[in-house]
Order: sequence, then structure tokens, then C-alpha cells
Amino acid sequence: MTGRHLCHISDLTVADMDRTLDAAEHMVPIAQGQSTTDAAHGKILATLFFEPSTRTRLSFESAMHRLGGNVISVADSSSSSSQKGETLADTVRMVASYSDAIVIRHPREGAARLASRVSRVPIINGGDGAGQHPSQTLTDLFTIRKAKGNIKDNVVTIAGDLKYGRTVHSLALALAAYGTQMIFVAPESLQVPAETRASLLAHGARARYANKLEEVIAETDVLYMTRIQKERFPDLDEYRKVQGVFHVTNRLLADGKKGIIVMHPLPRVGEIDQSVDDTPAAKYFEQAANGVPVRMALLAETLGVRGVA
Amino acid sequence: MTGRHLCHISDLTVADMDRTLDAAEHMVPIAQGQSTTDAAHGKILATLFFEPSTRTRLSFESAMHRLGGNVISVADSSSSSSQKGETLADTVRMVASYSDAIVIRHPREGAARLASRVSRVPIINGGDGAGQHPSQTLTDLFTIRKAKGNIKDNVVTIAGDLKYGRTVHSLALALAAYGTQMIFVAPESLQVPAETRASLLAHGARARYANKLEEVIAETDVLYMTRIQKERFPDLDEYRKVQGVFHVTNRLLADGKKGIIVMHPLPRVGEIDQSVDDTPAAKYFEQAANGVPVRMALLAETLGVRGVA
Amino acid sequence: MTGRHLCHISDLTVADMDRTLDAAEHMVPIAQGQSTTDAAHGKILATLFFEPSTRTRLSFESAMHRLGGNVISVADSSSSSSQKGETLADTVRMVASYSDAIVIRHPREGAARLASRVSRVPIINGGDGAGQHPSQTLTDLFTIRKAKGNIKDNVVTIAGDLKYGRTVHSLALALAAYGTQMIFVAPESLQVPAETRASLLAHGARARYANKLEEVIAETDVLYMTRIQKERFPDLDEYRKVQGVFHVTNRLLADGKKGIIVMHPLPRVGEIDQSVDDTPAAKYFEQAANGVPVRMALLAETLGVRGVA
Repeated sequence: MTGRHLCHISDLTVADMDRTLDAAEHMVPIAQGQSTTDAAHGKILATLFFEPSTRTRLSFESAMHRLGGNVISVADSSSSSSQKGETLADTVRMVASYSDAIVIRHPREGAARLASRVSRVPIINGGDGAGQHPSQTLTDLFTIRKAKGNIKDNVVTIAGDLKYGRTVHSLALALAAYGTQMIFVAPESLQVPAETRASLLAHGARARYANKLEEVIAETDVLYMTRIQKERFPDLDEYRKVQGVFHVTNRLLADGKKGIIVMHPLPRVGEIDQSVDDTPAAKYFEQAANGVPVRMALLAETLGVRGVA
Repeated sequence: MTGRHLCHISDLTVADMDRTLDAAEHMVPIAQGQSTTDAAHGKILATLFFEPSTRTRLSFESAMHRLGGNVISVADSSSSSSQKGETLADTVRMVASYSDAIVIRHPREGAARLASRVSRVPIINGGDGAGQHPSQTLTDLFTIRKAKGNIKDNVVTIAGDLKYGRTVHSLALALAAYGTQMIFVAPESLQVPAETRASLLAHGARARYANKLEEVIAETDVLYMTRIQKERFPDLDEYRKVQGVFHVTNRLLADGKKGIIVMHPLPRVGEIDQSVDDTPAAKYFEQAANGVPVRMALLAETLGVRGVA
Repeated sequence: MTGRHLCHISDLTVADMDRTLDAAEHMVPIAQGQSTTDAAHGKILATLFFEPSTRTRLSFESAMHRLGGNVISVADSSSSSSQKGETLADTVRMVASYSDAIVIRHPREGAARLASRVSRVPIINGGDGAGQHPSQTLTDLFTIRKAKGNIKDNVVTIAGDLKYGRTVHSLALALAAYGTQMIFVAPESLQVPAETRASLLAHGARARYANKLEEVIAETDVLYMTRIQKERFPDLDEYRKVQGVFHVTNRLLADGKKGIIVMHPLPRVGEIDQSVDDTPAAKYFEQAANGVPVRMALLAETLGVRGVA
């Protein structure tokens, strides 16, 4: 993967993903500050964010520092050249000449792919509109594997905003590649779009669709909740109709399979009751923390950094 | 203090404060760039600012870099997950999993304490509303000790906004612990709140209250001015009444005790005439610079970093 | 130049500029990540930006990291103390006490000079209103020298906004110092101001003035385009009159001298057709990339860093 762009989860084979997750295991002690490395000494990661984010940006920056490298950052498009009317392509060409790799987040689907066509350094998609978010997907896979031993032999129920949520589109394709069984739960207006369903079918995904968590909780190994993203709705009335439709409680989880785990890419705004936080089922904070070793592994591979762990 | 939170100045004993000030003395040459260290190599400080600041954020970041460590930063809440409705607790949990210590500034009093309850890494309060600002207080104590030889044997006159000013609340408690005599000077509407007065009394503080600098300048060793903070006033009319009520000049200082010094946490907006800047009494720029060695000492202790200086 | 401020291009002699460009040559492999250095280990650069910028800030930050140093940054005045009414002088004094050098960008002409009067560390002007931008000029000179072998023996045609464009004022004075022939092309309302013309005359500049690129393209070795900067116009109607008056195409360049090159400080907004990008004449992306080695050389000299390359 050295020198390669990562715009879409399907840029990676199952072998690529497995290798990255294996490498991430070795990164954990460094990610937690128990040991240090200078492997990426002198390297520069640019984080280029045209949309507010904290989690993705900070976890990539933390990962780069833990590897011994440096970071330059445009955290916010309001201080960017795009304000002066610059095209995305020109901005990316510039940032590429100041860095060794770029993580880009952009409100427009396909922005990362466009960036990859003009950049002399590898582009990592940090989320493009309702499109893809592959480093989040790798983090999700790592979390499932760590908690469940493997990725394939689970029923993963994905609930919430399945229409606008980019996390879901990346994750579903990856799980399809692993042959994992999926159940998609959402009110009709937020269900997986026809195009994505067709794509899942084409990839041989074992997928089912439902409207209520109660219908499927009994057969669920991994309950993956997502936020209803207010900022993606063209119409606030539509948002209000579906807001708060899911609220995971310990009572609901009691009906789940033995050893059920709950995940969420965060931030959450009411999808999971806080009383769940202290139970062994809650894996969402661990999932957030896993973002660092996974992104360390991804950066190390992308930058061609050797001898880390 | 290693691994401990610092939310409130009363989290520290006089012995803790003395030890930190002693350590800060040893940090001065590194803070000024005359020598370097790698003591905090591989460590990450997160600066999490929900309110604009330059001084506190940059001095902590400079301190961390001088120690050989790295920084990740949310400089501005507008690019933060809280925009998406995330709770402070969830944001802190996330940032804690990306770093080894967090400096937090927040407009709400008690925010740092709340953060400390959910964070797996030490929290340092970088100012919480009208509450506390303990690293500023340590910087103030360091400046007094350096200029006057010790902290106790001084009359410290604190003037300006004593109602909303968090700097004052932290400093007064620390000076009380040292047994230093204090005079609080403010118009009635901005005097020390009853609650804080009671707390000072309970701590055995030697405190007096006055309305005009002229009444007390003759017995003052340290004149500590503060800014009337427009942004804390619920009512702009109230602000206009008190704005500009204090303006320290060389003429005023001529009536002060021999060797009187003037301090200010900065930024100032008219409380001190610029003609004072070039006199030996002016210690506010030195006070600002002292923020780096003091915060280096604080970070080194908090992170458990050894062998710095 | 060690410890010296760089506020204005005329702070540098031709010998200073030549030495910096020579040093920049040696920085290229490090700037491109092919080798690394720790020469600026422990040093801190502060980037203090009161106006949005990406290119200047990121290229300085990249340069400092490539030298092995650290960066603290105020990327955006909205999170700055100036919001609380602090003077520029007080803000600069503060930042100077946290760093070893400051790059400042400010909307007001003369701001860098003012900063240099109160700063204990070297100030580098990163653009002050319609004033100067000397590190950009050094980058421009480096690009011309690399493409053409030397700076003097060229006809440099500078077109676009010659009234408000700070890049132009810096560059014209430097080219005058080298004895390079210049042609200034702009509509009358955006031509070089009388004051600057007089200054060029006083410096013995070989300068001519024209209104259309077509008139002078045949004798041009270096075509230096600039953006019509919307944000500098007091009146939007005036902006609309001149917007889009220049648009460089391959057809225009075909009439130019053999080996003609096109430069632009970027961002561009239509001054150069994208079909030019893939021709050997296009040097603007290389020019942007040159910003890193040139700023590395400038920082190394300013900070007194030795033994880099």
C-alpha cells in the first residue's frame, strides 16, 4: 500500500485490511504512550479539513505524532485559500508540495478521488460528504475483531442513518468482503439507498433489512449504531421526524445474543443511553481509542515507514 | 502530582506549589531556548479550548514543545464535535484516548472538574468561566517570588474585576495559603463575591477591601491589575459603568512603596498606561514569559517526565 | 542575517539574497523528504496570522518541521487576544516570549515593522496588507534562477493587480536590485502606484508600463501573473470592471519568447487557463513547492541554525 491513495474502502483487498489490522495490534503500546518510536522522523502529514471534525483530525494527528512524525493542518475551511476562490485541485497540489501524505475531509462526495488525481503524495479520504470514510471502517473492523475474535462469524446489525451516513457505506462494503452477515435497521426514509443495495448485492453481501431494533436484537452479535446527522438533511422537518427514533438501553440489550457488543462511530446524540456506558457491552469508547493504532498502521504503510513495532 | 488532575488551586498544597516553582526555576534556560531536552519525547499534550484564548494555549504548547513533546489542539469550539451536539464528557473521553494530558478551557464553571471525572489522562484546568485558572496562579506566584524574594512578606493589592475574574479567585486562595496580606480594590459592583469572601475567611486569609487605588497604594508591594472582562457581563450597560475605572500611571506608582511592582495577567485594555512599560516596576511582560517555565514544570510533574533540568 | 528582522525586501542586499538562494538549493532534498535533519531541534517558530492564509502559513510550518523544529500557531485572528481588545504590540510581545522567531501576516501595511520594534525575537513579514511579502519574493527569485540560470538577464513581465498586490511591490524592488528588466502590464486603474514607480526609479529600475499582454509577450522571458484580489477593493463595482481582464492561454504563450515561463504566487482564479498546466512553461506549481526550501534557508539563517545541509 506504500505510496497508494486510500479514497474508497474497495481500494483495499481483504488481505490489505488483514495486514493493516495485524500491524495495528503492534501499534497499541505506542498509541497508549507505553513506548515510543522515531520511525516517521522528518515526515509531514497534512490534515486538510473543509468540514469541521475533531475525532478524525485529532486521531490522525495523534497517530502521526506517536509515529515520531510532524503535522501541518488546515482545521477549518474558513482560513483556507478556497475562500479566495481557489479550486480544490490547486489547493491539493499546494498542500502536496508541503507534505508526505494528506488526509482530506470534504463535504462533497468524490472530493478525495479528485484530490488523488492531482496529488504527488498519497491521499487518505477522511470522509467525503455522504461517501466514504475508510480509516473509520478499518477502526471498526479492528474493534470487532478484538472483541469477537474474528470479523466473519458475526451478525452485525447496523442502525440509524443508513442513507446519509458515510461510515455505513464504507463498513457495509468491507463486511461484505469478509462475508459477514448484516442486518440494516432504519425507518424507511433513512434506509440504505437503492444504489448501495445494488452494490452490496453485486459484492455478494449477506444483507437483510428491517425497521425496528426489537425485531432483530435476538440474533445480533454486534449492534452498530449511527447518529442521525442533522447537517446532512436538506429539510429540517424531515430530520425532526426521524430524530430520536433509536435509543439503545440495557433493557433492549438484555434481549440480545450473549456477548453482544454495542459500537458507534461517535459523536452520539441520544442513540445510546448513558447507562450502557459502564457495561461490558459498550465498545464505542474503545472503538474511538482504536482509531490511533489503526491510523498509525495505515500511515506507516502509506508512508513506507519501516521498523515501527 | 504525577497523573493527578489540576482543576482548582486548592488541589495543591503549599509544598506542591513550592516544588513546582523550584522546578520552574530550572526550566528557565530551556524555556528561553538556551538549551534543549527530549524528556517528553513521544508524549502528546491536547489543548482543548471551547473559548478563544491565545496566551494560555500558546504558552502550554510552547512549554510542551520545549520539553520535547508534541501537541494536538482544538483551538476553537466552532470546529469541534460539540457543534454536532456531543456532550463535554464524550468529547473529553475521546481526546483523552488520543493524548497523555489535556489542558481544557471552557466558558462554564466546573467544566474542568467534570472532565476530570471521565478522563483516563490528567486534566489541567486552563480556565473555566468565572472559576479557576491554576496554572496562571502558579505563574503569578513565580513572578512575585522572583521579583520580591518570597511570596509571604508582601502586601498584594488586587484591583479591577474581582467579581468575574477567574484569575483573582485562584490567586487569592493561593496567597491565603501562603499567609500573604491582600487588599482587594474594586467598585462595589465588581467586588469579590460574598461566597469567595467567606471562603477566604475560612482559609484564614488576611484580606481587606477598598474602592480606590489611591487609598491603598502607599502600603502596596505588588499591584496586581486585572482586565474588566466585557465578555463576562450579562448586561453591556453595567460594563460601560465600570469600564476604565482604573488606569495605573507612573504618577500613581510614585506614591507606592519603594520597589513596588505591577502585574497583570494580560491582555490589558487600558488598565495600565503604556508609559509604565519601560519602568522597572512593570513585571507583566516578564509574567507572561514566566508562563512557559512554570507550565513546563507543571507538565513535567503531571506527565511524570524525569531528568529535564 | 541571524537574529535580524525581515520586514521589507530592502532589508536584504543582493549578497544576502544570493546567499539565501544558494542555501535553499541545499535544502531541496530535505524539503522533498529525501533526507532529514535535526538542526533546529528544540526551536519554536510562531506563525501569527491576522488574516486567512494557507500557502504562506503551511509552507513556513512545513519548512520549520523539515528543519527539525516545532511550531505554535494562531491561524486565525478570531481566536486571538486581539478580539479582547489587545494591541498588536502586546500580542507580539507575548508570542515573542513563547518562541524563537515569528512569522506575522496582518491586513495593515507596516504591521510587521511595528512588530519588529517590540519583539525580542526575529520577525519575518508574511504579508502586510498591500505592503510587502519578502519570503514570497525570495521564492520567486529562486524559481526564476532555477528555470533561467540567472535572475538578471531576463525580461520579466508582471501582470494583473499591480496596485494592491503586495507580492508585486516586493518582487519589483528585488528585480531592480538585480538589474533585471521589467514590464508592468495592467489596466490603468490597477497599474503600479505613483509612489512605487518613484521608488523603482530611485532604485535605478529598468521598468516599462503597458496595458495589454499582447503588446509585450514577444519580448517576455518570464510572465509573472497575479490575482486580482477581491478582498483589497474598497468598492466591489471597481472589482467587477477589472475582474477577468487577463487570461493566459497556450495561444498567447505561442507568441512569447522561446523558453518563456509562466509564474503566479497563487491562488489563481482564472488568470491562467488550466490547459497551460501541463506545458513546460507552467512553473507556478514548482514555484509553490519552492516555498519550502527557500523558507528553510531563511529560517535557518534567521535562527542561526548551522550544519543543515
